[in-house]
Amino acid sequence: MTAPNRATLWGRTLVDELAAGGLEAVCLAPGSRSTPLTVAFAEHPEIETYSHLDERSAAFFALGRARRTGEPTALVCTSGTAAANFHPAVIEASQARVPLLVLTADRPPELRDSGANQTVDQVKLYGDAVRWYVELPVPKPDERALRSLRTTAARALARTSGIPAGPVHLNCPFRKPLEPTRVPDAVPEGLEDTLAGRGRDGPFVRVSTGETTSTEDSRTPERIARALEDAARPLIVAGPADPPVRKLATSAVVDLATAVGAPIFADPLSTLRFGSHLETPDEDEPVVYGGYDTYVEAVPDPDAVIRFGASPTSKPLRHALRDADCRQFLVDPAGEWREATFTASDLVVSEPTSLFEAVSSELETETARARVDDAWLETLAAAEAHHWAVSTSGRADLESAPFEGAILATVFEAAPDPSTVFVSNSMPIRDANRFGEPRDADLTVLANRGASGIDGIVSTALGAGSATDDPLVLVTGDLALYHDSNGLLALKRCGVDATIVLLDNDGGGIFHKLPIESFDPPFTEQFRTPHGLEFDPLGELYGFDVRHVAPDKFEDAYRESFATSGTQLLSVSFDAEASHRRREVLEGRVLEAVRDLE
Amino acid sequence: MTAPNRATLWGRTLVDELAAGGLEAVCLAPGSRSTPLTVAFAEHPEIETYSHLDERSAAFFALGRARRTGEPTALVCTSGTAAANFHPAVIEASQARVPLLVLTADRPPELRDSGANQTVDQVKLYGDAVRWYVELPVPKPDERALRSLRTTAARALARTSGIPAGPVHLNCPFRKPLEPTRVPDAVPEGLEDTLAGRGRDGPFVRVSTGETTSTEDSRTPERIARALEDAARPLIVAGPADPPVRKLATSAVVDLATAVGAPIFADPLSTLRFGSHLETPDEDEPVVYGGYDTYVEAVPDPDAVIRFGASPTSKPLRHALRDADCRQFLVDPAGEWREATFTASDLVVSEPTSLFEAVSSELETETARARVDDAWLETLAAAEAHHWAVSTSGRADLESAPFEGAILATVFEAAPDPSTVFVSNSMPIRDANRFGEPRDADLTVLANRGASGIDGIVSTALGAGSATDDPLVLVTGDLALYHDSNGLLALKRCGVDATIVLLDNDGGGIFHKLPIESFDPPFTEQFRTPHGLEFDPLGELYGFDVRHVAPDKFEDAYRESFATSGTQLLSVSFDAEASHRRREVLEGRVLEAVRDLE
Repeated sequence: MTAPNRATLWGRTLVDELAAGGLEAVCLAPGSRSTPLTVAFAEHPEIETYSHLDERSAAFFALGRARRTGEPTALVCTSGTAAANFHPAVIEASQARVPLLVLTADRPPELRDSGANQTVDQVKLYGDAVRWYVELPVPKPDERALRSLRTTAARALARTSGIPAGPVHLNCPFRKPLEPTRVPDAVPEGLEDTLAGRGRDGPFVRVSTGETTSTEDSRTPERIARALEDAARPLIVAGPADPPVRKLATSAVVDLATAVGAPIFADPLSTLRFGSHLETPDEDEPVVYGGYDTYVEAVPDPDAVIRFGASPTSKPLRHALRDADCRQFLVDPAGEWREATFTASDLVVSEPTSLFEAVSSELETETARARVDDAWLETLAAAEAHHWAVSTSGRADLESAPFEGAILATVFEAAPDPSTVFVSNSMPIRDANRFGEPRDADLTVLANRGASGIDGIVSTALGAGSATDDPLVLVTGDLALYHDSNGLLALKRCGVDATIVLLDNDGGGIFHKLPIESFDPPFTEQFRTPHGLEFDPLGELYGFDVRHVAPDKFEDAYRESFATSGTQLLSVSFDAEASHRRREVLEGRVLEAVRDLE
Repeated sequence: MTAPNRATLWGRTLVDELAAGGLEAVCLAPGSRSTPLTVAFAEHPEIETYSHLDERSAAFFALGRARRTGEPTALVCTSGTAAANFHPAVIEASQARVPLLVLTADRPPELRDSGANQTVDQVKLYGDAVRWYVELPVPKPDERALRSLRTTAARALARTSGIPAGPVHLNCPFRKPLEPTRVPDAVPEGLEDTLAGRGRDGPFVRVSTGETTSTEDSRTPERIARALEDAARPLIVAGPADPPVRKLATSAVVDLATAVGAPIFADPLSTLRFGSHLETPDEDEPVVYGGYDTYVEAVPDPDAVIRFGASPTSKPLRHALRDADCRQFLVDPAGEWREATFTASDLVVSEPTSLFEAVSSELETETARARVDDAWLETLAAAEAHHWAVSTSGRADLESAPFEGAILATVFEAAPDPSTVFVSNSMPIRDANRFGEPRDADLTVLANRGASGIDGIVSTALGAGSATDDPLVLVTGDLALYHDSNGLLALKRCGVDATIVLLDNDGGGIFHKLPIESFDPPFTEQFRTPHGLEFDPLGELYGFDVRHVAPDKFEDAYRESFATSGTQLLSVSFDAEASHRRREVLEGRVLEAVRDLE
């Protein structure tokens, strides 16, 4: 059926090509100028639509979904400041390599800079934070224009999943009528049919994705293999994973580590800290380590390092790597530099999986194992054991000595298998890093570590939760919960259930970790910023249960939440300063034990 | 006293120069990298600080304060996505000419693009939406660097109030230590003292502002005077005022209008709709008209027009001006084009006040008055009288025929004198335009009409309210209230009281005005977006009273609110569609009466 007018034709064609290219979901914020896009998305049978009222939350929701699935999610808004509300999530998507297709409706070019209502300069609105920016022409009903539109749509979608993945921005000007109102002779008969899929099932332009591997003549795998064979204390550092989180073949890392005799220091956001590769752990010689944040400064430095993924969450680990005077291979498929201490000696541009397989096949295993310093491995294994023993003991007296880390320990220990666990920035991710014990369970652990903001946390988590039937856990502080409280509307509107763990220390607890703590004023008023908010009314507003739980009762309430339908917010109150002091005490105990090993 | 380290020196110097240059207020969002700025602002005795936890709301609050006062407000955030959360307000400030000084802390250049935490590309983050972008160097403790810093600070502050006023962005990289921790030998003794104010009281660099006037040899005032003398139906159109709202001398407009015999069509956001110039209105021949939105299409076109301010809120007026085949002078001090129908024939680059005074003194008053078509003036006066009579009659049976416009009529009629009335976009500003009757009262009426978004409404209003002791009224719809519900935290944190009038029609009522209304789906789900939110819990969360008021009981509750301390949210529920139909009925009655005049 011929489209009733040009805007409708344009919107339909664009959306049809995106759907044919595999786009599965879109977040829509209401608006007038975006009507042709909204109508086309809403009527498309194969694309799931999520309606959001706050564009900032919409964008983070789309980000969360794309982060969890690794597949592009589209995002639509009207013209004006609406588009600027997408900016924080676009930056996070850019830094964290999340495929996001941003479609902003716009007024036609002749209305720009003329005082026309809701008309702002949207050209390159997100600057260099997008992989590709395209200024679409105003809808034009001829074949070449539609071929161009379909080609752009296919390329844009593919580009979101390129190397590296990230956001793409299509700015889409429309003239009225925007609604599917019939305009006689606006669209030639049959124009659409000649183009759709070129008569075959599928997109007009099919883009086959590529992958970065080390070139055959570079001898890179060989050089890495030799370096590992020569090393006495070889270390593999798995940083936060890039979406799709499951792209990396865990086995390739574990096999290499086992062949070399190298421990893996696994970030909670890597795919190595949790998973079935931990099914039969060897406590005397574990392959995957998670407790290094407390003890890495007290054990001997590695003498060869392979790093992949983003920069590790653990600051002590980053500092230890900075101080280790050795060869360090930084593996990244996009060839970006992902460590800010500038200590790496070799940048290897390759997907880790294929590279590690190639290194393994080059490796003389016996030579490598023979060189490994067993005493070092024993120290590491003992330190790791001490760390978890102390962490566990620290949870024995929560009534008298509550601290936030104990909650994170429980969150990971008792999370359902499988589940998605989204962890907010600031203190929660640091405690997840320190207290999330490696576990044989299919936990997809996510955080917004691209730019590490505390904005959009709720929405990103709910977006991630919307993508699967896995139970969803969100761990957040009170500031992040406040910051994106609007995101809670998606619980009902988008049909997501979650277990929300709120670590409520009434303000910015993380500032107690910083030297500013000793300058008050302005510490309390401008940094710690106690707000006194009681979040119970949010439950009433957005329709979920709020339960106040004492730290020592948290585990029961947490487990119970998974047996309960709907969303529960488990609010656990803490004194941020006391939590910090408790962390220091436990860290001291681990360090003492580790120093005694020597 | 010598600053303890370079970052502290830098922050103090910058803030000292801004204070000396007249900066009075800053909105601070907590963060680590911005510590040198936050500490310097917090310790400065002459700068008022407002602490905000959501950067988006912080920026709109600053915008509101600057919009109300016409004086620059500063804005500080840490590095990362925090800065992107300022973007919507920066765009509004740019489009609406609001002086805003945006200070974003940043990591030092060597950490960019290296995977360093919370490090994003902040260079030119707001694109062309700022009047000036400066990348400050990292703090450097020598005299020339400090002279440069002070000069940049003085220029940046002045630039926010330039022609046109608007946002300026200083990106401020800092290296650790960020806190005022003493670092031996980091800052030479006495360095600061030699610079502060060059030994005199005041800024290091004093910038004297300029003003645009028509040049003497241009004969512009003369040409305008002749055009007005020749006109039978001369019209003055006062669009939304630019900050500072009180800059325009109302008397210059009224004097010119009176001399010419030209009616003034006064936008509710101009300074002409309300004020003491209406003290002795002449009902037979009013100077200021406010009801034109209903009847302008039914009265004869003007034959000469002077327009100033931004593009009028009234769409019927914009269309009538488009269709009037006559000379139209567009007066703008910045020489920008502020009407999107492209009907103006003369762009006059000048401040309206000096121009109008010049035109008045050129004018042959008797010639001008003699040419005026008295029948036309009588028609206008009668139409205006009909409009307000019908509007008043429409409020007589609110119980049986409630509609949103009646609330806006009461809002203006019963607002305290003086007071600040902030009106949200979407339907409230349209109803303010149509039902806000001209009144001899000192009402400062504000709205975010630069980009006309529904984001940041609460914060902008509270920022405006923070600037004076005048009572503050905020009129908002439910979507805008939800969108910036975080902004409500400022009621307590920033000590602002308000009367919040909520027109709750459960979703995007404005879409009933658009053709998309007849396409359902997707109308309800994607456009009207009923959310079912009951806002009472927000009152509990942020500490204010919520009162549900029937439309016919609104006036009493509204008047009572001003006699009550604290903040009251008066929630009035409406059926959006019924409201639209009621507006149409009333409009029909006015048009019928006006057509009978001919």
